[in-house]
Amino acid sequence: MNLFYQPNIPEGIHYLDRDESHHAVRVMRLGEKQTIDLTDGRGLFYVAKITRADPKKCEFEIIEKKQIARRDFQVHIAIAPTKNADRMEWFVEKVTEIGVDQISFMFCKNSERKVINCERIEKVAVSAMKQSQQAWLPKINDMVSFKEIFSMNADQKFIAYVDASNPRHLQSAAKPEKNYLILVGPEGDFSKDELELALQNGFEKVSLGANRLRTETAALVSCQILNLKNI
Amino acid sequence: MNLFYQPNIPEGIHYLDRDESHHAVRVMRLGEKQTIDLTDGRGLFYVAKITRADPKKCEFEIIEKKQIARRDFQVHIAIAPTKNADRMEWFVEKVTEIGVDQISFMFCKNSERKVINCERIEKVAVSAMKQSQQAWLPKINDMVSFKEIFSMNADQKFIAYVDASNPRHLQSAAKPEKNYLILVGPEGDFSKDELELALQNGFEKVSLGANRLRTETAALVSCQILNLKNI
Repeated sequence: MNLFYQPNIPEGIHYLDRDESHHAVRVMRLGEKQTIDLTDGRGLFYVAKITRADPKKCEFEIIEKKQIARRDFQVHIAIAPTKNADRMEWFVEKVTEIGVDQISFMFCKNSERKVINCERIEKVAVSAMKQSQQAWLPKINDMVSFKEIFSMNADQKFIAYVDASNPRHLQSAAKPEKNYLILVGPEGDFSKDELELALQNGFEKVSLGANRLRTETAALVSCQILNLKNI
Repeated sequence: MNLFYQPNIPEGIHYLDRDESHHAVRVMRLGEKQTIDLTDGRGLFYVAKITRADPKKCEFEIIEKKQIARRDFQVHIAIAPTKNADRMEWFVEKVTEIGVDQISFMFCKNSERKVINCERIEKVAVSAMKQSQQAWLPKINDMVSFKEIFSMNADQKFIAYVDASNPRHLQSAAKPEKNYLILVGPEGDFSKDELELALQNGFEKVSLGANRLRTETAALVSCQILNLKNI
């Protein structure tokens, strides 16, 4: 099944944007009266019938819609972007496939990247959502400072950090059916001050296992652990 | 800590190969009498002293060695390589970081790739082993036919396959401290015949969750689940 994306269906937009129109009409060779599956990325799946097979603006009419409830837990990952942008795109693709609700990018003392291409990241997330047949697009937040993270809400707040005081594994620390926020640091790790500040602000220090993981792997592993707590 | 790799230390080879010598002498500017950390990828960590800082053949003498025991479980993933070779390299990097013992590539009915560049894959695994500070290099097997997989040993054998008969989640099916073998199919999935054959050969059908995952994501998720069963 091929899933198309049109975020503005609830606002009455009943056509595909240019890229999606091209894909439907030119690549998949869909024509009038053929049905397509769509999502608005806000929890709705639609079945629609093509009414005008224009490769630049493919129009459709809705036949059916189906509401998909939000999960009874929420995973929010705040990550310090890696120097290599590909690794961030890969991370977004994989956590979207596995299941993530919100992604924030944060600037830390040891960060090697200060800006992120949100438009590009959003495209990767849309593509992964469609590929994995989901109706909810993760919320992607632009770069914020480390301190701004503290104003974000969650039931359980974690910071991935390994030191001699041997923190608990995230798998033991996380409780089911919660809204989680987990911070994953840059290649040079969080500074001692950042760790201290996070602990003062209600974050719990957690381990992700014995191996030293790259930033994007740590984020992926934590996402997977939090999803597994809820199956 | 920077970890160097020389697989033949047990056979008396006390120098780094060309790439590693260049990295040590030219990039890290290490000189005579400086110490380096090494692994042979076969369970040993070494501390060595550089005796000749040649950027083409950096010689060293062993000062200390430390044996790292094998884990009390083993993860063997047999995967049908994806059309896109990058996705396979990425998969090998990530499962090596997370923890994997053996990787096999298999050719299935719906496979889009018949050959794999084992030398390249091996390099990716070495790099990820070093990066994640491990002393065991996963064993990488060259492409085999789907049927050849059946002659491989394991305590628990799984095939990742989702259908209407609703298989168990791998997290419930896997028992701790076992040798696992899990099969992950190609983009077009296993054929019905392949599934049937696997079931007849003692494989258990398992699910990896509700979302439709790409081949390399499914393999990564299964690796992570099997590791988590053993923490």
